[in-house]
Amino acid sequence: MSEHPVPVNLARAFGRIPDCWHPRIVGQVNEVHVKLVKLAGEFVWHAHEHEDELFLVVRGRLLMRFRQGDVVVEPGEFVIVPRGVEHCPVADEDTHVLLVEPATTVNTGTAGGDRTREAEWL
Amino acid sequence: MSEHPVPVNLARAFGRIPDCWHPRIVGQVNEVHVKLVKLAGEFVWHAHEHEDELFLVVRGRLLMRFRQGDVVVEPGEFVIVPRGVEHCPVADEDTHVLLVEPATTVNTGTAGGDRTREAEWL
Repeated sequence: MSEHPVPVNLARAFGRIPDCWHPRIVGQVNEVHVKLVKLAGEFVWHAHEHEDELFLVVRGRLLMRFRQGDVVVEPGEFVIVPRGVEHCPVADEDTHVLLVEPATTVNTGTAGGDRTREAEWL
Repeated sequence: MSEHPVPVNLARAFGRIPDCWHPRIVGQVNEVHVKLVKLAGEFVWHAHEHEDELFLVVRGRLLMRFRQGDVVVEPGEFVIVPRGVEHCPVADEDTHVLLVEPATTVNTGTAGGDRTREAEWL
């Protein structure tokens, strides 16, 4: 390594993301990607067969729906959705979320459909 | 799953950690652990042979020393130290850091010594 690693500022990185529900990769830790995603409105019910998924709320408010009930995640809080567990993220206001999940994770999981987005590096 | 996942509040979780330089596990995403650690003062130079390591500053200020120079990481910023890269974390004030790293990661890496701590679940 000829130069040292460069820190990522979350607020500035979110400022470079133009659209919602389209995760951008901002880092990799072994087989896991760190992604940033902007949420607004309701997503689709889905599950990931092999991947656990961490949602850390940086700004706004995340309502995570599960079949057993809803969970509210505020800024400075995270929730981990275990593999196989159906969930549907909802955000009533503009919400910024940091994701930690295996690089193989697709945003719509096994549900697929027109909300599917390829995660790309920011 | 009979109940839905429970969110983790970072500030409250840090409030339950009594000591510095002793990472506590607060979540798992596949093979990766999410840990919280309080820093104060200077750690030891070390590297991890097989593990990348993410440091997200939640409070305070992290000075990460590399052989090529120092990097400052402020709240709302993260830096990823690639495997094999020597580093030495320093905190001039009480600093709260969220770590994302493989579950196999030892805090002192290959350096070992009396600053080594077993990460345990909070």
